[in-house]
Amino acid sequence: MSSSPFSLPEIRKDEIFNRWVIISTARSRRPSEFKSRSPAAASNHNKSTTPSCPFCRGREHECAPEIFRIPRGTDGWKIRVIENLYPALNRDLELPAGIGCGDSGCDARRSGMRGFGFHDVVIETPFHSVRLQDLSPAEVGEVVLAYKERVRQLAQNELVEYVQVFKNYGASAGASMTHSHSQMIGIPLIPPTVSARLASLKELFDKSGKCVLCEARAEDLLINESNHFFAIVPFAASFPFEIWIIPKDHTSYFHDLDETQAEDFGGLLKLMLTKLSKQLNDPPYNFMIHSSPFHLPESQLAYAHWFLQIIPQLNVVGGFEMGSGCFINPIFPEDAAKVLREVNSM
Amino acid sequence: MSSSPFSLPEIRKDEIFNRWVIISTARSRRPSEFKSRSPAAASNHNKSTTPSCPFCRGREHECAPEIFRIPRGTDGWKIRVIENLYPALNRDLELPAGIGCGDSGCDARRSGMRGFGFHDVVIETPFHSVRLQDLSPAEVGEVVLAYKERVRQLAQNELVEYVQVFKNYGASAGASMTHSHSQMIGIPLIPPTVSARLASLKELFDKSGKCVLCEARAEDLLINESNHFFAIVPFAASFPFEIWIIPKDHTSYFHDLDETQAEDFGGLLKLMLTKLSKQLNDPPYNFMIHSSPFHLPESQLAYAHWFLQIIPQLNVVGGFEMGSGCFINPIFPEDAAKVLREVNSM
Ligand SMILES: Nc1ncnc2c1ncn2[C@@H]1O[C@H](COP(=O)(O)OP(=O)(O)O[C@H]2O[C@H](CO)[C@@H](O)[C@H](O)[C@H]2O)[C@@H](O)[C@H]1O
Ligand SMILES: Nc1ncnc2c1ncn2[C@@H]1O[C@H](COP(=O)(O)OP(=O)(O)O[C@H]2O[C@H](CO)[C@@H](O)[C@H](O)[C@H]2O)[C@@H](O)[C@H]1O
Repeated sequence: MSSSPFSLPEIRKDEIFNRWVIISTARSRRPSEFKSRSPAAASNHNKSTTPSCPFCRGREHECAPEIFRIPRGTDGWKIRVIENLYPALNRDLELPAGIGCGDSGCDARRSGMRGFGFHDVVIETPFHSVRLQDLSPAEVGEVVLAYKERVRQLAQNELVEYVQVFKNYGASAGASMTHSHSQMIGIPLIPPTVSARLASLKELFDKSGKCVLCEARAEDLLINESNHFFAIVPFAASFPFEIWIIPKDHTSYFHDLDETQAEDFGGLLKLMLTKLSKQLNDPPYNFMIHSSPFHLPESQLAYAHWFLQIIPQLNVVGGFEMGSGCFINPIFPEDAAKVLREVNSM
Repeated sequence: MSSSPFSLPEIRKDEIFNRWVIISTARSRRPSEFKSRSPAAASNHNKSTTPSCPFCRGREHECAPEIFRIPRGTDGWKIRVIENLYPALNRDLELPAGIGCGDSGCDARRSGMRGFGFHDVVIETPFHSVRLQDLSPAEVGEVVLAYKERVRQLAQNELVEYVQVFKNYGASAGASMTHSHSQMIGIPLIPPTVSARLASLKELFDKSGKCVLCEARAEDLLINESNHFFAIVPFAASFPFEIWIIPKDHTSYFHDLDETQAEDFGGLLKLMLTKLSKQLNDPPYNFMIHSSPFHLPESQLAYAHWFLQIIPQLNVVGGFEMGSGCFINPIFPEDAAKVLREVNSM
């Protein structure tokens, strides 16, 4: 398939998320013209402590309760994991035993349950002006280990089925706080999107005898690799300059990664964020860790392969995408990968 | 279930789109505080013709080719349906016979097809400063009939499987043109989201013996009704103040509606857009018509029920939603319906 910036449109299948993507350069900007028009840090990058930021060191008392800090027992913390002050779900609600997705006997028009769940914030640095990508690879690795530790704690709660770890960076990616942070939400159900992703992986394995994520490391889509991970623009990327960081080993759970892998992962994540920032003018972005639900039978788990997805916010999703679930990506993934391969210094 | 503005969070199931929605007022604004901070028309509402707008009457030569106009054969047109100058898909590409979704023998990591399809624009009024909701009910009905006519034409092309009709209003809903318009894209495949919606309707029918959309007209969720349609906030709305307009008759295809129904629908659509505008400070919005694919066997089609979904853009989708496919809605649908019932004058 062609990858010249003015080639004909293609319709590609994202086999993992089971959706179609139209790759169309019709109103294309050249690759170099995708730069963000609203760089994320422009407004919040000047001062090292803003008087009103509760995430800054020294203002811990303005935050919801702390769950743990790194290093433990010091005032000079580097990372704090805290409860969200305005949680979407309530950790103190009792979930009646037996309530669940397919609850029989409930009104087909109205099914639901009480809003039990966990909603936590990871403060990635004590300093207001430091972005995640400004940390060293080892420090980003520590943030990743903080995610891991909290996910492991949540996995102990038998009512929690899935944890979504995510980061919003920049206002148009949804961030309401500018101090560098990420979040996680533990929910008492398996989202249908997650079940569908796992089912796709199994189906693709059954067809080809291989895991598509293990096999996704293709020359034309590769951006960089480290010892344990590789970073690509996926073949059917829904968004321009979307990036996936994939473990080379076939592993189902993010929270199984060890310290060496975490530091290695931290370095590659830092590199990808730096590249996006340099090539696209510090765009707002989201990243999401796509891991596996906690209580899956081994037979299903065997097909799962976790990864991290980064989506820079460079264009607005419109009615076509919301209505059809198909996306329009204005740059060929091969071309985006080329642009991201270009910068290599950190 | 409770609907007080400070009640505990709930997790509700959107049975039709098969996703979970967290209704959480934790960081809530009161219903009256949802007003848009970036009203859509603020910047483009003053002049009746802007010198650079190709959609204005008299500038037809700056547009891509016209498909038809209403009324036919007049210079003083009211509506024009034209080709999109920068189409996402190419109507002149030949689609090799037999290419399709489940193409056997193709690389599991790379499946796709040529970008064949139709991408059209409906110019809803000749006047730059007129919004869709400023038209009379009969005129909105004519716009709806223009959609219908173009969908019917596209249905004649045997390679087109589905048409997505949609409108982007306001920059943060994706609109790049300010002159009132909508779009449609005809694609050579059935989006998995659409198949899943139809499968859900069938499954729910099999469970309860009834169509959930026929049954969706509940007092606490109802906003208004007309002769042939009703408008509700859905029980598990993903977005604050989301509205669905649903035909009272169980009908699978939008493009089967007749002139009387179109005018009736036009009136209700105008009313809903006016209400959103008045109560929420002219928010940007998208609307999407969820109809049925063209070449479905009668046995499947029998379960389908089309509707129009309006999503005002009042908050930003973040990493949690993108990662998990679950949404967080900060207002109870019953409360949103109450706010929208309040205004009744047009
Ligand atoms: N003193 C304090 N102590 C503890 N926690 C505090 C705090 N002050 C603020 N917080 C919390 O810190 C979090 C910061 O999160 P973000 O800036 O990433 O986005 P937010 O969750 O607001 O919403 C974005 O992400 C969500 C989830 O994707 C979307 O639903 C939403 O639309 C989007 O704007 C907020 O959730 C807030 O409640
Ligand atoms: N002279 C002319 N003649 C004919 N057509 C002309 C024209 N000048 C402009 N056009 C077309 O008019 C359309 C106007 O559409 P909108 O403003 O609704 O959003 P757009 O399609 O740009 O993108 C939004 O909607 C799409 C689909 O949802 C998203 O992919 C995208 O990110 C979002 O910004 C454009 O598609 C443009 O190509």
